[in-house]
Amino acid sequence: MSDLRVAVLGVGVMGADHVARIQNKISGARVAVVNDYLTEKAEQIAAGIPGCRVIADPLDAIADAQVDAVVLATPGPTHEKQLLACLEHTKPVLCEKPLTTDVETALEVVRREAQLSTRLIQVGFMRRFDHEYAQLKALIDSGDLGTPLVLHCAHRNPSVPPSFDSAMIVKDSLVHEVDVARFLFGEEITSIQIIKPAANPSAPHGVADPQIAIMRTATGKHIDVELFVTTGVAYEVRTELVAERGSAMIGLDVGLIRKSFPGTWGGQITPGFQERFGQAYDSEVQRWVNAVHNGRSTGDFTDGPTAWDGYAAAAVCAAGVESLDSGDPVEVTMVDRRSVPRA
Amino acid sequence: MSDLRVAVLGVGVMGADHVARIQNKISGARVAVVNDYLTEKAEQIAAGIPGCRVIADPLDAIADAQVDAVVLATPGPTHEKQLLACLEHTKPVLCEKPLTTDVETALEVVRREAQLSTRLIQVGFMRRFDHEYAQLKALIDSGDLGTPLVLHCAHRNPSVPPSFDSAMIVKDSLVHEVDVARFLFGEEITSIQIIKPAANPSAPHGVADPQIAIMRTATGKHIDVELFVTTGVAYEVRTELVAERGSAMIGLDVGLIRKSFPGTWGGQITPGFQERFGQAYDSEVQRWVNAVHNGRSTGDFTDGPTAWDGYAAAAVCAAGVESLDSGDPVEVTMVDRRSVPRA
Amino acid sequence: MSDLRVAVLGVGVMGADHVARIQNKISGARVAVVNDYLTEKAEQIAAGIPGCRVIADPLDAIADAQVDAVVLATPGPTHEKQLLACLEHTKPVLCEKPLTTDVETALEVVRREAQLSTRLIQVGFMRRFDHEYAQLKALIDSGDLGTPLVLHCAHRNPSVPPSFDSAMIVKDSLVHEVDVARFLFGEEITSIQIIKPAANPSAPHGVADPQIAIMRTATGKHIDVELFVTTGVAYEVRTELVAERGSAMIGLDVGLIRKSFPGTWGGQITPGFQERFGQAYDSEVQRWVNAVHNGRSTGDFTDGPTAWDGYAAAAVCAAGVESLDSGDPVEVTMVDRRSVPRA
Amino acid sequence: MSDLRVAVLGVGVMGADHVARIQNKISGARVAVVNDYLTEKAEQIAAGIPGCRVIADPLDAIADAQVDAVVLATPGPTHEKQLLACLEHTKPVLCEKPLTTDVETALEVVRREAQLSTRLIQVGFMRRFDHEYAQLKALIDSGDLGTPLVLHCAHRNPSVPPSFDSAMIVKDSLVHEVDVARFLFGEEITSIQIIKPAANPSAPHGVADPQIAIMRTATGKHIDVELFVTTGVAYEVRTELVAERGSAMIGLDVGLIRKSFPGTWGGQITPGFQERFGQAYDSEVQRWVNAVHNGRSTGDFTDGPTAWDGYAAAAVCAAGVESLDSGDPVEVTMVDRRSVPRA
Repeated sequence: MSDLRVAVLGVGVMGADHVARIQNKISGARVAVVNDYLTEKAEQIAAGIPGCRVIADPLDAIADAQVDAVVLATPGPTHEKQLLACLEHTKPVLCEKPLTTDVETALEVVRREAQLSTRLIQVGFMRRFDHEYAQLKALIDSGDLGTPLVLHCAHRNPSVPPSFDSAMIVKDSLVHEVDVARFLFGEEITSIQIIKPAANPSAPHGVADPQIAIMRTATGKHIDVELFVTTGVAYEVRTELVAERGSAMIGLDVGLIRKSFPGTWGGQITPGFQERFGQAYDSEVQRWVNAVHNGRSTGDFTDGPTAWDGYAAAAVCAAGVESLDSGDPVEVTMVDRRSVPRA
Repeated sequence: MSDLRVAVLGVGVMGADHVARIQNKISGARVAVVNDYLTEKAEQIAAGIPGCRVIADPLDAIADAQVDAVVLATPGPTHEKQLLACLEHTKPVLCEKPLTTDVETALEVVRREAQLSTRLIQVGFMRRFDHEYAQLKALIDSGDLGTPLVLHCAHRNPSVPPSFDSAMIVKDSLVHEVDVARFLFGEEITSIQIIKPAANPSAPHGVADPQIAIMRTATGKHIDVELFVTTGVAYEVRTELVAERGSAMIGLDVGLIRKSFPGTWGGQITPGFQERFGQAYDSEVQRWVNAVHNGRSTGDFTDGPTAWDGYAAAAVCAAGVESLDSGDPVEVTMVDRRSVPRA
Repeated sequence: MSDLRVAVLGVGVMGADHVARIQNKISGARVAVVNDYLTEKAEQIAAGIPGCRVIADPLDAIADAQVDAVVLATPGPTHEKQLLACLEHTKPVLCEKPLTTDVETALEVVRREAQLSTRLIQVGFMRRFDHEYAQLKALIDSGDLGTPLVLHCAHRNPSVPPSFDSAMIVKDSLVHEVDVARFLFGEEITSIQIIKPAANPSAPHGVADPQIAIMRTATGKHIDVELFVTTGVAYEVRTELVAERGSAMIGLDVGLIRKSFPGTWGGQITPGFQERFGQAYDSEVQRWVNAVHNGRSTGDFTDGPTAWDGYAAAAVCAAGVESLDSGDPVEVTMVDRRSVPRA
Repeated sequence: MSDLRVAVLGVGVMGADHVARIQNKISGARVAVVNDYLTEKAEQIAAGIPGCRVIADPLDAIADAQVDAVVLATPGPTHEKQLLACLEHTKPVLCEKPLTTDVETALEVVRREAQLSTRLIQVGFMRRFDHEYAQLKALIDSGDLGTPLVLHCAHRNPSVPPSFDSAMIVKDSLVHEVDVARFLFGEEITSIQIIKPAANPSAPHGVADPQIAIMRTATGKHIDVELFVTTGVAYEVRTELVAERGSAMIGLDVGLIRKSFPGTWGGQITPGFQERFGQAYDSEVQRWVNAVHNGRSTGDFTDGPTAWDGYAAAAVCAAGVESLDSGDPVEVTMVDRRSVPRA
């Protein structure tokens, strides 16, 4: 299967991040086209990618015959037109949130896609792909905890750009918990209240921060969210599910912690080496592949343990086996490394 | 840059895992050749990969002009000959541990590579690529904890294959801690002692399990390792560094825990969304790319939040902004989903 | 100073617990009088305490010249009259919550006490004496976290008696968080809202459980409390403070966890042996005192490590010191325990 | 039962601590006699305790007819003679470690006590009374984890007095783990080895610190102990049991953490309010008793929540019950505190 030719529209922070991701980490795709309203930026990025073109007009990029799929990282107000173009040209599109900037146009996009026989639009609510959220969802779906009842969330940023205002806390921060709640509970939210406690003295003047959002779903499940974007600490996203037969919390930097009958708290130990070291294997191989690509110029086709490391480990283990028999300490015998130049 | 054409030699558990990794997760490489002494197995795997050939003789595979690099997942006793072939044909090779099965041949491989002007052999000590080990190494190298003094390790498997014997605990399990100790301390191990406590009643008859390994480095640093391969619990790999100005532990399923002056313990909070959700973004995009590849047959070019999810989030946030102004609870207004067929 | 002669009024679960506490753990006090509307129960308890009398009428008990102080563990509706009697007779009183069962009588009690020149009434909000709450209060008062902003609380019981109704969740459970919030923030609560999510299917029919309480203080600080009394899990009381420069959480069974700039989470390590083993010393001495009291009948004046344990430790340490010099393993030499009958 | 009259011999740090403990926290005992080779110190302490005498000669103190029991906190070299005097006068004695300063005299004390028909000597290995060690012991004895196999211990002090030498690390620090191992495993230690890694650069010159002790019990169980007395961090005492069907760790400042089949880690949630708040109730009542004792001079017979706190809680809960019915936010109605002078 040949690599998917992706057009990335908008190469600000998020879009540039997607470009790097697709080029360096994703199998089966490459960035074929980049676009930005700052053409220079687009050209700079394209220059670093073999075979990548700049197309100045986003609608031309979407329509381009050499583009198989689109990543939309443009400003929200342009989404509607670009999404409709994707639908028109039957181009699959991964659209960074928001879908569009108001409810009416969002519904219009939904309706236009529904008229097609395929589903083309995916929205970038990436939390659904986070291991911890996926675990929490699986735990709910397993039924082990019984009926889900309540969700407590905290969403804290150390700081935000100067332009961040009170409404953006709802539209840009809370929106993630809105999707998380819908995802975990599998039902729609029917009411919402925003509480404004006394503001953080360190928050910019006039910004209501922190805020507390109280939401309720169709069947009466309760969700509360602390939104606090000027904590000065770090990035903390926590979600606790309270259910009929126990609770579970993610986002405390210690994995999913579950509380269950008859009164225990704790987490899961990695069951095997694949779970424990899967990430390590992936990184090992990716870095090795990169090193091999670069080896012709560097003369070094490795990026990790060398043959000498293999030899040293062998020498220690051989002494270990000897000690296993005798029970006594055994000196490790190795040649002087300087006797093997370049090792 | 065209994809690296990799030959994977040996497609048992580990080798097959590497094949899947290279095909599905690694950017810039593809499996061009597979080989196994069970030809059928190799053929089965090759069948699932476009453009992948089977080459029956591993030395032919190494020599093949259409092979850029080699992954060695064959049984240990065949490594020496295959590694030397890689050196001869100047093929970069990622060699699963052990380098070879005895010290003399390992040294011979080191010497032969050292005669070349390039470094071609990387050994599969994958722990160096694990985020936690990398963090621990970075912490040591930062100097924040002062001189490293002692390493306490535990290496526990829930169970092992029936063929596992006492010496394999040293050669196949301890070997990882040997490399970890050398990696973290940056010096060679000079002596080793294996202590055999009373055996676990649940261990196979005649197998010395658990074992305690006591090692010492060139400058007198102490390493102890509990090796216990029949715990019946899970896969636990723990490493604690004790240093002049504090200690740090990894492998407790809660990230790196550090203890420092003046008496605090704890970990790091993810500083930003890239650190917290980087994995989620990667998974999101990889799964979207896969969905788009499959979309022509499924009619669904998404594998995640749909346009409807984008619409629903917009509706809730719009109500939230209204509540932000009024302070009162606001009903969320949405069209009935059934009014938009296929959404 | 002679022991305080305490009258315990009401010897149900809570009162009987106080009786045992005063007799077995508290220095400087003894239970001189017990009272209960079930006279038999009072007599049963008094029988086990040297010099303890039963007084049938609680007001007589309060007035009794041989009573120095009163513990009130009677049903709430009787509190008003009994508290006023304590004031009249100038008897210090520790009153289990509630002070009285309605706001008007509570205010009357406050007014009557305020007319005296001494403070006689203490209310049994025991959480203020819990180490973790005390630590959290000290942390707030230290100013390290800046202005306190928000308090998130969870108050979960595995189950409640059949008589527990929706209003008792507010009056008997939430009342503790009301006091905690006032204690930690040092200001009054000015508004409250109770949200009733869809009820736990396992809760008794008609009981609104869980409930969410939303409170606001005089200066606009926000408090939310999850009240859930049929979790089936265990007793969980959690409080998280969110402040201007960090947050702190207690009640996760892992001590106080603090999150601070620049992005660390964690707790305090016990600074010294007094903090780590203070409880052990207290228990050791209390149990030894009890054993000595009982020794005349048992012939054993110990309840802990014996002289043999002291000897065995000496033998091992002597061998250890020898090994410290030689570096070699040393056999421990001890006499056969059977050679010392009764040791 | 009248209070036990205790003679505390030696009122240095440890002895003075015991005096305060017996006077302020322990029920059923009082300090009747103190003794120290620094008579002035003894007199100073006695002056603060009603009815407490100083006796200059420790043997006279032991023999005194008004002394029921003895706490020995004198220097080790004097223990033998004092313990034998206790035996002679049939006085129960709680002896701070060590029993005596060498193996022979320790055995002599054991033999002399064994000739009596009662057990009079208890040694101050206080860890056996620590909640976590007690939990670990109970877990072992429950058989849930199967046969105990290995014990990993760490014993770390931030610093030690200048006089501390290498042998004291064995005799004064390791001695606790010797008792812990004997206590938990219920068998004697048969061999010991002390390993001296390269010393901490921050340790005093000539002191072997850290040290690693390797011990083995009669049935072959393995114990290793890291002794490190110049960590500069805090006081860390950790013990991990590895057993046939799981492991458990205490001393990480997070309670007992257990790892069990099928791969979970975690702790126990407090099952009820007695376990969660037992310490709070004890402190509440002890502090209230103390306040009442002092009330005659202070005019304040409370040390905790006042009647006003009870009133305020009642006012908030009454509003809460109103909100429970209506679902709406309810203002809390309270009188102005200034309208009730002295409340």
